[in-house]
Amino acid sequence: MIGVDWGTSSFRAFRLAENGAIRDRREAAEGILQIPQGGFAEALHRRIGAWLADGEDRVLLSGMVGSRQGWVEAPYLPCPAGAEELARALIDVPFAAARVKLVPGLSDVDDAGVPEVMRGEETQIIGALEAIGEAGTVCLPGSHSKWARVSAGRITGYRTHLTGEAFAGLRGHTILGRMMRDGPTDPAAFDRGVMRAGDPGGLLHHLFGVRTLGLTGQLGETESAAYLSGLLIGHELATALPDRGRVHLIGAPELCSLYARAIAARGGTPAIEDSDAAARGLARIGRSIRWS
Amino acid sequence: MIGVDWGTSSFRAFRLAENGAIRDRREAAEGILQIPQGGFAEALHRRIGAWLADGEDRVLLSGMVGSRQGWVEAPYLPCPAGAEELARALIDVPFAAARVKLVPGLSDVDDAGVPEVMRGEETQIIGALEAIGEAGTVCLPGSHSKWARVSAGRITGYRTHLTGEAFAGLRGHTILGRMMRDGPTDPAAFDRGVMRAGDPGGLLHHLFGVRTLGLTGQLGETESAAYLSGLLIGHELATALPDRGRVHLIGAPELCSLYARAIAARGGTPAIEDSDAAARGLARIGRSIRWS
Repeated sequence: MIGVDWGTSSFRAFRLAENGAIRDRREAAEGILQIPQGGFAEALHRRIGAWLADGEDRVLLSGMVGSRQGWVEAPYLPCPAGAEELARALIDVPFAAARVKLVPGLSDVDDAGVPEVMRGEETQIIGALEAIGEAGTVCLPGSHSKWARVSAGRITGYRTHLTGEAFAGLRGHTILGRMMRDGPTDPAAFDRGVMRAGDPGGLLHHLFGVRTLGLTGQLGETESAAYLSGLLIGHELATALPDRGRVHLIGAPELCSLYARAIAARGGTPAIEDSDAAARGLARIGRSIRWS
Repeated sequence: MIGVDWGTSSFRAFRLAENGAIRDRREAAEGILQIPQGGFAEALHRRIGAWLADGEDRVLLSGMVGSRQGWVEAPYLPCPAGAEELARALIDVPFAAARVKLVPGLSDVDDAGVPEVMRGEETQIIGALEAIGEAGTVCLPGSHSKWARVSAGRITGYRTHLTGEAFAGLRGHTILGRMMRDGPTDPAAFDRGVMRAGDPGGLLHHLFGVRTLGLTGQLGETESAAYLSGLLIGHELATALPDRGRVHLIGAPELCSLYARAIAARGGTPAIEDSDAAARGLARIGRSIRWS
């Protein structure tokens, strides 16, 4: 089987063995936003045509490829859901050279009834079920960080934080960025930002402090970006980090390391999981599919 | 006497009578960032030369004109401070056609020891002392909203929130802005944003909700910006709004109205003060100056 994690800005395909092992892979910076309307079949064929010619005839897709801006729109499946529920809710995608199915995203509502949406992360979480065990918390950091609860093999609910995008917007387009110079991430400044999130005053007040600490020379130009990053992640953790239990991190290794550092600083127990969780999840869902 | 409130993006000059009444005014969008290096004397003369020719010979400046990017840098005076302390800490500015003095900004530290700075707002607050009475809270909303405590004619301390700049950065440079269309501010959507700030989850989680409410049609394109504005102001109020007492608002009338609406929605008592508070403050400080 071929598994494809096709997101907004990247394409990752895996040729999977029966037991889920990755036999081969293709990665490209060709996310769904780079695909012209009606061009998905051609783009997929260009990336995995060689595997199809070699006999593969089943393709499972996950990610934003199932969104309104993607190939075929798949309605969200509500939480709780596990591999079986996802496998039963797959969407068939028309494609000449193979059978293609698409994993739907998951929806939820928060404590106040405001909707939650994810596409792609559900498959990564399914891929980490073995590491998680009976129950646990999963964090997928990024532009839209997701914190999910898993119990008995199912995703029972989750919350999203706009942390990564807020960082980019605040750094690139407010006065805070003017005092920042790129450089290697400064771990001590990052830690100061994480701990600052626990002070009184709230995030909007703490953001002004990034400027005054810079103005008064208490935060250097290469430290400021790391401090801001720590501050925002610290505010995310203030409401997202559970009181107990391991937090399983899935995502880009560098970002997972930062989150692990922040989680530990706030008394939590982080564990960085295999960054190929998407491939494992596609394989696991694939085992529940009746292709015929 | 002539009073000048010279900020980052605007210039406002007042010709003041002995009793503080405004005899005439000049306003221009010529903030300090528009003035070339060494060009402040010329710019001031261009704006108020006619008043000088008519016999005025004392000029009092306040605002960012006293910053490192301004005409002459005035060290911050620490809180608590009132009109007398500010008058004793004025900086002389070299100018051929009149005696020119500059009101210093005020510094403070928050509960965690992080510095606070203001330039110009201290003069506006002094100008509202009569309305405030013996003690009270003043809010000056804007890019960097200030919340000050006043007691017995002195500013005892204050906190800043980066609310206005965060709004602009998030609206203009994250996915949230893509679902927003300009239009008249929607009061009901603004109120929903204000109240949303009281829900669990924190600001970064609530920001993602702006997107999902839009995606699911629960927030229209012209409502989203008002909702985001209410959400940020609501988060500012969550830590800034005191348990009791009137909140005196000083600033642009439209913004003060929004804040008054939000403060009332959260159980506070707003009062919008004269937007010429800067002129009153310059006059009041001016009465304490020994010009000779």
